[in-house]
Amino acid sequence: MANYPPAARGMLLGEIDTPALVLELDAFERNLELLPAIVRGSGARVRPHAKSHKCVEIARRQLRAGAVGICCQKVSEAEVFVDGGIGDVLVTNEVVGRPKIRRLAELAHRARIGVCVDDAGNVVELSAVAEATGVVLDTLVEINVGGNRCGVAPGEEAVQLALAVRNAPGLRFAGLHAYYGTAQHMRAVAQRRAASQLSAAHARDTRDALSRFGLPCETITGGGTGTFFFDATSGVFNELQPGSYVFMDADYQRNEWQDAPRFEASLFVHSMVMSAAAPGHVVVDAGLKALAVDSGLPLIRGGRGLSYAGASDEHGVVTVADGVAAPRLGERLQLVPGHCDPTVNLYDHMIVARNGRVEDIWPVAARGALW
Amino acid sequence: MANYPPAARGMLLGEIDTPALVLELDAFERNLELLPAIVRGSGARVRPHAKSHKCVEIARRQLRAGAVGICCQKVSEAEVFVDGGIGDVLVTNEVVGRPKIRRLAELAHRARIGVCVDDAGNVVELSAVAEATGVVLDTLVEINVGGNRCGVAPGEEAVQLALAVRNAPGLRFAGLHAYYGTAQHMRAVAQRRAASQLSAAHARDTRDALSRFGLPCETITGGGTGTFFFDATSGVFNELQPGSYVFMDADYQRNEWQDAPRFEASLFVHSMVMSAAAPGHVVVDAGLKALAVDSGLPLIRGGRGLSYAGASDEHGVVTVADGVAAPRLGERLQLVPGHCDPTVNLYDHMIVARNGRVEDIWPVAARGALW
Repeated sequence: MANYPPAARGMLLGEIDTPALVLELDAFERNLELLPAIVRGSGARVRPHAKSHKCVEIARRQLRAGAVGICCQKVSEAEVFVDGGIGDVLVTNEVVGRPKIRRLAELAHRARIGVCVDDAGNVVELSAVAEATGVVLDTLVEINVGGNRCGVAPGEEAVQLALAVRNAPGLRFAGLHAYYGTAQHMRAVAQRRAASQLSAAHARDTRDALSRFGLPCETITGGGTGTFFFDATSGVFNELQPGSYVFMDADYQRNEWQDAPRFEASLFVHSMVMSAAAPGHVVVDAGLKALAVDSGLPLIRGGRGLSYAGASDEHGVVTVADGVAAPRLGERLQLVPGHCDPTVNLYDHMIVARNGRVEDIWPVAARGALW
Repeated sequence: MANYPPAARGMLLGEIDTPALVLELDAFERNLELLPAIVRGSGARVRPHAKSHKCVEIARRQLRAGAVGICCQKVSEAEVFVDGGIGDVLVTNEVVGRPKIRRLAELAHRARIGVCVDDAGNVVELSAVAEATGVVLDTLVEINVGGNRCGVAPGEEAVQLALAVRNAPGLRFAGLHAYYGTAQHMRAVAQRRAASQLSAAHARDTRDALSRFGLPCETITGGGTGTFFFDATSGVFNELQPGSYVFMDADYQRNEWQDAPRFEASLFVHSMVMSAAAPGHVVVDAGLKALAVDSGLPLIRGGRGLSYAGASDEHGVVTVADGVAAPRLGERLQLVPGHCDPTVNLYDHMIVARNGRVEDIWPVAARGALW
């Protein structure tokens, strides 16, 4: 396997091999502290999403900064973090199929494990496997608050499923998962605020309906990097799960922020000009296998009339505006990924730097944890 | 690291965990044999591109099917294949920067190694490192035949660079790299034929100009899965480098083929319905981290009124047409990736199947080989 890191501790960033995923510690640490500072006073707990970073060292630092645990999206991802010593993991997703459910239940011998449900048959299967494994799984009912992906309808449907959870001997009803994914990248602050209010209203109505059945919602969780500051003050959400805030990316930077708290870009793909033979453009060594382009092409840090204009598997074409000096062969360009989560998932190592020097190398241990 | 495979030998495909990258051996083997059968008679050699599969076992089978060697796009990729016993690797790319060049030269102690150039300064550096390492690198001048990515202009510019290669003591001038990347997905057969003729004409003119300087082109290489059958009969190309033909993908299937030889889809991402709570759609467990979407969303094998309509990091929303029965929770959907190369690069293992059963598991050993 070709999984040696492209850098070593102590190197200057100008010496590392490319493409490389570089985390700038100063900005990262400010992001790490800014999140709890914003949420403090709202009474909400912070449980950051580890699907963005897939890195045990970052999860440890999030816990030291006050997080109550982490979120994962996949069982195999949760396994990596429990192996890394993280003791409280909420899988913010449905877990379907016997092999995955068995592994999830096994994890509950070693950590506090939560999971989401949106199907009564799945509740029965989860409970049976949990019982057979000798564990009890914290179980949240996922409600569809606008994202139109997973989740039952708020209100009556959610109540019925919560009652099924309460009656399932291997499960403990732990609350509601009310995440509005598509709201995170609504560009206008007012749109995101309105979306947050909508999801909070759905969660509140469902909570109140549940209380009429004597089912208290210990946890109501939701909120991403685009909305958590609204969710925090809703009086409804008591747990928040932003993930991208540690890194930011070009897509989040396209959001409008105004008074909303703004995190700093801390994650860059360092690339190198490997062809400067053609007029009007140069080619860098970071393409589709080094950068996720689902949310747009990367930005070039420092700009200077350069645009990353097209990606192929191993190449990026960078156009050069008239009157701007083209970068030379071997020159390095730092790219801001369009979308941090799937970009991080392309790398085995994060090169961790401060003041232009490699301070550490962190494994992206849950890279490829798809199951 | 979460790199255990989601299946074991002997399992039924209906039992493997998901998402999983599944190679169907029957179709794959037919593709493997069809390529040399098409090229046979043209006199051109076959050197398939390993950037598509990143798998040593597939490279071995390509050699057994008559290939003279393989192509790689990155030095770290070439290292994986040389480690795996492949003795002849052409890096169809410029290699820039001292760390990469040193590793490339070291490889030439263990295998026949070729490389491309499009810059005179790079020629000097490659030669110096090769000399210091005690090797001679086969060096091809890359010419821009229409793809407008890397490469010097055909004709005079290429001749000047080839002369520089001839005069470089660590290098041996080995010919021309004339790959027209963007031609591969031109939809109409006539467009691709015309593009092939254009690239052949540029290569021929350059070859003829070089012969006037006493520089014979031992190799003229190019051609991908979309054009190689035209390139083969051009009388100019004597080496061909298709890669995707072993797998095909949804984007290649959108090409028109008519009389042009057509390969079969052999590579699928097996996914599972993990939410069926909402009306009108279901959600599968394969999103952006399981499928590259740069060339379009995946197709659903067997169709039946289902469309993969949207991908987020770990989810795929599959819409269900009116009057069609929605897949049930836990049901498996087989997806045809939009673009095979960056999809393969997301997986550590290829689940290799025949007649619905797992026959073997092949490591995607060069997954993540970015340097």
